[in-house]
Amino acid sequence: MGEEIKVLQFGLGPIGNKVTQYIAGRAYLEIVGGIDIDPDKVGKDVGELAGLDPVGAIVTDDAGKLLGESDAEAVVLTTTSSLESIKPQVLEIVEQKKNVISTCEELSYPWITGPEISKEIDEAARANGVTVLGTGINPGFLMDALPVALSGVCREVKSVLVERIQDAQYRRIPFQKKIGAGLTTEGFARKKEEGTLRHVGLTESIHMIASSLGWTLDKTEDIIEPIIADQTTSTDAMTIKEGDARGVCQTGRGWMNGEEVVTLVFRAAIAEPDPRDRIFISGTPDIDSTIKGGVNGDIATCAITVNAIAPTVKARPGLLTMTDMPTVCALV
Amino acid sequence: MGEEIKVLQFGLGPIGNKVTQYIAGRAYLEIVGGIDIDPDKVGKDVGELAGLDPVGAIVTDDAGKLLGESDAEAVVLTTTSSLESIKPQVLEIVEQKKNVISTCEELSYPWITGPEISKEIDEAARANGVTVLGTGINPGFLMDALPVALSGVCREVKSVLVERIQDAQYRRIPFQKKIGAGLTTEGFARKKEEGTLRHVGLTESIHMIASSLGWTLDKTEDIIEPIIADQTTSTDAMTIKEGDARGVCQTGRGWMNGEEVVTLVFRAAIAEPDPRDRIFISGTPDIDSTIKGGVNGDIATCAITVNAIAPTVKARPGLLTMTDMPTVCALV
Repeated sequence: MGEEIKVLQFGLGPIGNKVTQYIAGRAYLEIVGGIDIDPDKVGKDVGELAGLDPVGAIVTDDAGKLLGESDAEAVVLTTTSSLESIKPQVLEIVEQKKNVISTCEELSYPWITGPEISKEIDEAARANGVTVLGTGINPGFLMDALPVALSGVCREVKSVLVERIQDAQYRRIPFQKKIGAGLTTEGFARKKEEGTLRHVGLTESIHMIASSLGWTLDKTEDIIEPIIADQTTSTDAMTIKEGDARGVCQTGRGWMNGEEVVTLVFRAAIAEPDPRDRIFISGTPDIDSTIKGGVNGDIATCAITVNAIAPTVKARPGLLTMTDMPTVCALV
Repeated sequence: MGEEIKVLQFGLGPIGNKVTQYIAGRAYLEIVGGIDIDPDKVGKDVGELAGLDPVGAIVTDDAGKLLGESDAEAVVLTTTSSLESIKPQVLEIVEQKKNVISTCEELSYPWITGPEISKEIDEAARANGVTVLGTGINPGFLMDALPVALSGVCREVKSVLVERIQDAQYRRIPFQKKIGAGLTTEGFARKKEEGTLRHVGLTESIHMIASSLGWTLDKTEDIIEPIIADQTTSTDAMTIKEGDARGVCQTGRGWMNGEEVVTLVFRAAIAEPDPRDRIFISGTPDIDSTIKGGVNGDIATCAITVNAIAPTVKARPGLLTMTDMPTVCALV
């Protein structure tokens, strides 16, 4: 690989800390600084925050100062899911001529949902000769970039269906709570109203697929529904009564010329049968691809983020999406 | 897409003709010429050779003249599996500043098996500002680029197994003969000796995987064995006696530090059960991905070749492999 790539960690929540752990396993990557606004984290070593030995990189809350002084080439940005909120952070990093690899879901394919912000980020990135990439397992790979890649073997594609089905039974408790498990239907409706149940990114995934295939969509839809327990179910963390929610089903749909051509189904629930990541392309030929058991989202999001660092640093300048990139892989 | 991409077809065998058909279905591609040395094809219309209406492009055997005069941006090169044989054709095209998309199996990842030719082609392509890509379903995607892409979600990869299992029962008769179906074990051994049984590309696929993951292999292996019928089996085309070959099993292996880390199994036989394309990555996490029924090779090779034309024309100059490319997909 030649020289090490120096990386700053911007955002030191659970994802940021796991990214730190994964970077520590890659000889060609080195963490040289951390940024977080949490006073409990400022002044601490980025390695120690991640449960590792110190790496000699101390967390600061002064992003501008660190970005201006550091010779890092890349910043892993894990602060928010929102394109609008992340924009000033991305621009600040880009102006310091550093590449951005972000888990921000809305940055994964922002060209349709946020065309002006996309253009602004793209122009700033080009002007500064750096690359901005939004990535992650979903959005970023399983429900968008991977089906797009599989379409490469097709003469024709009529429609794309992706199912990401997860049994939350053995996932961490915050995840079980996040998907609404154990809530009454009223509680579920309230949480949905608050917006905290929503998996961010289905719309971005639909647009990535459609744009890649040259499709102009009439409209998209993103619907959240509870999955209701038809019997009482217990996990280590909770008991779910019959009639209460055992999880969430979120469905994204994209229409072209009045027909549904993209369907993304994301189900995560306690005791959900047959967990899998399935892609079905109706076309010539049909492609019916299934990852048995599904891909663990916690590991995979951090892995693909870390795996994307080196290719992003080498990629052409601009705001890129996963389909613009050379293949992101587990380079050791 | 803006303007149409003008394409020359170099090699008008079965693959070249099918590529012509697929190009005809893409509004942004236009065939403007054909090259073949077969006197039966010279002077004929490329469209008519493919069973279509005439496209106004006449086949010539004077490659140099057509390449020099044509304003085509891309040449689809489907003449040979051999890197050494294709080299002069690639260089001739590149010197006329045209991009090359080829189904030549040995061109799919030639960096390890033919480093000098690779360097020569790469330098010529860069000097002329064009891109050279070897692609196809296998090698080029199912047994190399796709497993590499799937590794992107892994923190760590210990080994990669790919199984491409095909039931040849319903494939065209030349394919059934090609895989040695119906031969006695002596006949199979003779055909293997002649070299006509060999599926070209397993070694290239092994190297694409290993190089992408940053692995330096000790050695590779490519073994061809008959699959023996344990009972008499009849197809429309032939009867296979018990004890004779019903097809071929070809296994590619790559070792690193004395351990087998890449295993590619290509089985094609009459009445082969459970046809599939399976990728198993042993790592963190394990990834076990299967395309049900497997991907039809005849369609897919031509589809991915046609799908690769536009991205190759746009890609950076040089000799690229499928993992260097932005995602190749079924753009309409």
